[in-house]
Amino acid sequence: MISVADLHAGLRDELSGVERLMDAIGDEVDVPLLGQLIRHVLQAKGKRIRPTLAFMSARFGKYPVERLTLLGAAVELLQTASLIHDDLVDDSATRRGIVTLHRIANAKASVLVGDYLFAKSAALATATKSLAVMALFARTLMAMSDGELREMSNNSNDDRTLEQYYRRIEGKTASLFVAATEGGAILSGIGERGELALRAYGLNLGMAFQIADDILDFVGTEEELGKPVGGDLRQGTLTLPVLWALDNLSDGAVLRRVVEQEQASDEEVDAAVRLVAASPAIEFAQREAERFARQACEALAIFPAGEARDQLEGLADYSVRRRH
Amino acid sequence: MISVADLHAGLRDELSGVERLMDAIGDEVDVPLLGQLIRHVLQAKGKRIRPTLAFMSARFGKYPVERLTLLGAAVELLQTASLIHDDLVDDSATRRGIVTLHRIANAKASVLVGDYLFAKSAALATATKSLAVMALFARTLMAMSDGELREMSNNSNDDRTLEQYYRRIEGKTASLFVAATEGGAILSGIGERGELALRAYGLNLGMAFQIADDILDFVGTEEELGKPVGGDLRQGTLTLPVLWALDNLSDGAVLRRVVEQEQASDEEVDAAVRLVAASPAIEFAQREAERFARQACEALAIFPAGEARDQLEGLADYSVRRRH
Repeated sequence: MISVADLHAGLRDELSGVERLMDAIGDEVDVPLLGQLIRHVLQAKGKRIRPTLAFMSARFGKYPVERLTLLGAAVELLQTASLIHDDLVDDSATRRGIVTLHRIANAKASVLVGDYLFAKSAALATATKSLAVMALFARTLMAMSDGELREMSNNSNDDRTLEQYYRRIEGKTASLFVAATEGGAILSGIGERGELALRAYGLNLGMAFQIADDILDFVGTEEELGKPVGGDLRQGTLTLPVLWALDNLSDGAVLRRVVEQEQASDEEVDAAVRLVAASPAIEFAQREAERFARQACEALAIFPAGEARDQLEGLADYSVRRRH
Repeated sequence: MISVADLHAGLRDELSGVERLMDAIGDEVDVPLLGQLIRHVLQAKGKRIRPTLAFMSARFGKYPVERLTLLGAAVELLQTASLIHDDLVDDSATRRGIVTLHRIANAKASVLVGDYLFAKSAALATATKSLAVMALFARTLMAMSDGELREMSNNSNDDRTLEQYYRRIEGKTASLFVAATEGGAILSGIGERGELALRAYGLNLGMAFQIADDILDFVGTEEELGKPVGGDLRQGTLTLPVLWALDNLSDGAVLRRVVEQEQASDEEVDAAVRLVAASPAIEFAQREAERFARQACEALAIFPAGEARDQLEGLADYSVRRRH
């Protein structure tokens, strides 16, 4: 199986450029306290999947490194900004193993630093000087907000269909993957057919990636995840394994209680997490993730065989097999 | 004195177009609860100064109504989104006489609806299909966040100079005026010299407008303001009249106590507000506002005399003489 490290190895200079752009952000702010907060948030570097995708998606045409670097940093920052607001509204304690911003500072700082990073992200996207990239960026922002608003609304009105779940994760995760892959395609100048193919690749890859995340939330360890197991269920977010389990498990009483109750005890949540983790819900979700990964690869059929395509296919495979 | 109603009268069709774009936003969302929240926020229509400015700033060149309408709505939404986050972080109870979103719903809804309107605003700006407008939009977002972050930071570290105050209001208010005036100039195609002139006009007008607001917070009535008198001081925001009073009043003990203490009593705050309102601080601030309004008008000297210029001058005059 290809690893993220393998992909990064071929993109060392490019990804260093992204890091330099991101590192500069905390230093640019001339209010010291805020520079500190921004550096705190940006220290959790994650896997840089989205910048990696931006570069990998530009390999079928010209490869304008500088503009791709701006795009990669813009998409990564958009993700960071959105996580800051998510963690605030969900009151999460840690993210990627690091204490969240609203816990280390306060809600005010989280709202404003999130807004600042949205703004910075828009500035980086604008610096690509591509109207098509800017339009994509605006669509991405809309799709992300829409996904978040749906998640909030679903918590309160019990709209628990698979269709709702897929719409939510499309907005919250897949839209950012699309920003990276379609953005890369646009900047590589390969034309509309290639843009559509890489858009479809990014969309399906994003879906596969998020379902895999939602599975790991049940079957991973706290160490692998950098946050407590079963966190989604604990905060009332109903993901694919839970939705399947609610519909299909005959022994799902404890899970139903946790989902219906405003305040379930820690013991009940733990029992519900164990129930889902040991059930066929995991296998069902895994098959769904693999179906999306396959669709991602099929979208690449218009491109010539070779290293560029192999690596995108390898990333799709990795996204549904990873352990963290 | 020219009134906002006079200016609106000449722009009836244009401003109706902006209203239609804004009204459509709540209806587009297919999650009913959220459509309601967005409509609640957008019902407080304000004076539509920024869209008015966008149209008025495009009268020296061509006048592309549709794109100006998109710009006007984008800038107005940007303002609305930023007020939602402001009211949340300041925990304000009302805005333009209407209960704030986080009070009618909750903090989560405020963060996410604010983000959604930022996104929608970016989409409208993108629809102008002008890279220069998009770049201006991204700079505006940055300037606004920067102003907000400074305000937060200043509350905590006692950095109370006039210079800091001017930087803050430039970010939080004048930057949006610039987005409207420079954006209008860009879309009218009058070239760089005209863009710079209308940028300087918008910047100085915005400064004048905000200082006038900060004066009204002391000398207006609750009915005129749509919120309690002295609200800025109550929430710890130090505006121009207060900064002047702190430096220059010999009988300012109660004001100093209110500013230094974490929790001043309502009686003390009322006394401090009365002290400032009756002091020469108001006249000083008024002279500063008029100085900026004059500079705004001077920036227009490159344009031919006539109705277009007269109205912009009239608006500068209005901005420092209005009662609400």
